[in-house]
This record gives sequence, C-alpha cells and structure tokens, in this order.
Amino acid sequence: MDDADAADHPDNADLAWETLDSAVDYACPGFDVRRDEVRFPDGDTDGFHYVDEPPAVVVLPLTPDGEAVVIDEWRQAVGRVNRGIPAGTMEPEDEGEGSADGDPSDAAVERAAARELAEETGYEADAFERLTTVEPTNGMANAVHHHVLATGCEPTADRDLDHNESISVETVPYDDLLAAVVDGGLRDGRAVTAVLWYELLHR
Amino acid sequence: MDDADAADHPDNADLAWETLDSAVDYACPGFDVRRDEVRFPDGDTDGFHYVDEPPAVVVLPLTPDGEAVVIDEWRQAVGRVNRGIPAGTMEPEDEGEGSADGDPSDAAVERAAARELAEETGYEADAFERLTTVEPTNGMANAVHHHVLATGCEPTADRDLDHNESISVETVPYDDLLAAVVDGGLRDGRAVTAVLWYELLHR
Repeated sequence: MDDADAADHPDNADLAWETLDSAVDYACPGFDVRRDEVRFPDGDTDGFHYVDEPPAVVVLPLTPDGEAVVIDEWRQAVGRVNRGIPAGTMEPEDEGEGSADGDPSDAAVERAAARELAEETGYEADAFERLTTVEPTNGMANAVHHHVLATGCEPTADRDLDHNESISVETVPYDDLLAAVVDGGLRDGRAVTAVLWYELLHR
Repeated sequence: MDDADAADHPDNADLAWETLDSAVDYACPGFDVRRDEVRFPDGDTDGFHYVDEPPAVVVLPLTPDGEAVVIDEWRQAVGRVNRGIPAGTMEPEDEGEGSADGDPSDAAVERAAARELAEETGYEADAFERLTTVEPTNGMANAVHHHVLATGCEPTADRDLDHNESISVETVPYDDLLAAVVDGGLRDGRAVTAVLWYELLHR
C-alpha cells in the first residue's frame, strides 16, 4: 500500500502518463499553474494543468493545560473568517544539509513548524512530533501538508505576520476543538485532519 | 465554533477583508484562478489570487463483506500512481429544485456520490450517509469536499470514465486501508480524511 508497493503493482505501469514537456503557464503570488504535455496510456497526448506550490507544515499546538492554540483568519477564497491552526510554507533553509528529492527530514519539518507557530501565534513548543503527510488535493495541485503536533506550548515568542495576514489568536479547550470537528462547525480541512489524526493515534 | 458563532465573535469584523472587485484572471480545464481586489483591515488594498473550482464529493465505499472499494489512478501533479477513493465534481443537476447559496442538500450530495461511484468504479451502494464537509486548502482555493459513506456496495453498474482517467479498481479489506492511513502509506488527503472520520464516529 505504500509507494514502493504501488510501483510494484503489475497494473500500475499501465496507468502512468508520460510527461513530454512541462512549463509554468501562469504565475501569481502564492502559486503557479503548470501545464504539462502528457501522453496517456492509450497513446493520446494532451495538456494537463495543475497548481504548483511549495510544501507546507500544519501545526496542532497544545498547551500544558490541555488547550489548543487556534487562529481565526479571513479566508478570501471562501469569503469568511476561518478557525484553523497555524500553517505555512516550508522554506529552503528549513532543510539544511542533506536536502534531497522526496519528503523533508523530521528536523526540517520541525524547524518550519516552530517558525510558523511563533510567527502566527507567538507561541513556542517544548516538543514537536511529526504526525503524517498528506496531499490534500492531488488531482489538481502538488500541495503536500506535513502535519506536526506541538506540545507544551507557551506564549513566549514575538509574532511576525505577513502584510496581508489578519489573525486573531486564542486558546480553547482541546475538547471544544474536537467537538467542532465532530459537529461540522470546523470546516478547515487541515485542522480537521490534524485533530482526527491526533484522536486516532494519541487518545 | 460554527459559522454563526464565528460571525458573532466581536473580533471577527476586524478580520474581514472588503472585496472591491473580482475577475477570472486565468482559466484552464479543471479550474480558474480569480484575482480579487481587496481592502485589508488596515485600509491597504491589493490583489489576492485563488483557485476557483466547483465543490466535489468524496465517497468511502464499503462492501457487505467489510471491504473498501479503492482506485489506483495516475496523478500528474505528484507524478505517481495514487491510491484513493472515488471523488468528483458536483454537477448543477445534482441539486434539483430548491438549490440556493450555501451547502448542497443531502439528496444532492448523495446523487453526486452515486454517480461518481458508478462512473469510476462500476459499484452501486445500498445506502449513503453524509459524513462531513471540509475545505481542504481554503488559503488558496475555494474547494469544498463533501464526504459520503456508501455502504452495501456491489459491482452492478457500468463504468464511464472521462477521456483522461486511467483508473484501476479493486477491493481491499477495510482494515488494510486503515493500516495504510496509520503507517503513512496512503498520502491521498481526501481518503485519509474519510477514513479518519469513519474511524472516529462509526467504529
């Protein structure tokens, strides 16, 4: 079921597309759109467009008192204030030495998580634990979300928001955050994945 | 914690951006990119770009024998065969009468789920149950995923794939699918959300 298994599956070679060309077709702040010229298994060729964006970390921050640090933030794409958890793009300097293709090291993910947590919320964690990695919408984007649990969080850092980030930070009982996942009030898919994962494997 | 509560939160009005203009800045098969001209809470104005795409259904199909119907499919955006579950875009005819702004009716989501399940896998379900609705990447896209559980699935329909869909269908023990979520072998975020949700609330 992992990638190696999938590659070994006898049918999978029949599913692969061949990439004949790839170019950025559109660029804007935040992401590019690439157009790949591809050959399908039946031999036909066509263009395929997808969003090209850097990998990101998603941080579930818990305080020593069993609270979660959450953020309320305007989300223009959905036209409302969104309750979520800290998240942001990984930077090249997160990886340090030994960078290579494929998934980043645990240390790189933790560096990115610590930075995004501090910048967006002003909190620092005692410890980080990598939870899982998912591709939230791999039909139309190469986005990768590395989920990280941050424990022992205390408000000891200075916030440093991007110019267009309007963020309100508060702590809520973790069980209230879980209840919002269960009743559907929390629509932020990144936060939902982090909370569900934490529930399944840590509680 | 739900949207109504969020709107009532005294700080949330301070977070809202004002939309001064909105236009499609780029179009390709599958999605558009919109550029909104916005005014931030501090009074500055700027453009904000995001992916504009229709809402989708994600279907977790289970057979009477406790197997899950899964699909292996090439995903050009991530350059590999992806194991996932059926998913697809909602169509205007799914809603029927009574359509309005906001989330679709349960009946509309079930119609879309039944269609995507049949088209992609050739299976039909005895019953559908709506699980949850999430916005997987609402920082950069207005994508909405309506998750649906489909039970009593049997291979009684004809598949009807889009021209560029190369899909291999098989059934696997549900517990194997869960194990792949837990060990990180399953990276498809939609499938991970559906399985985690099913685990939390139904098992």
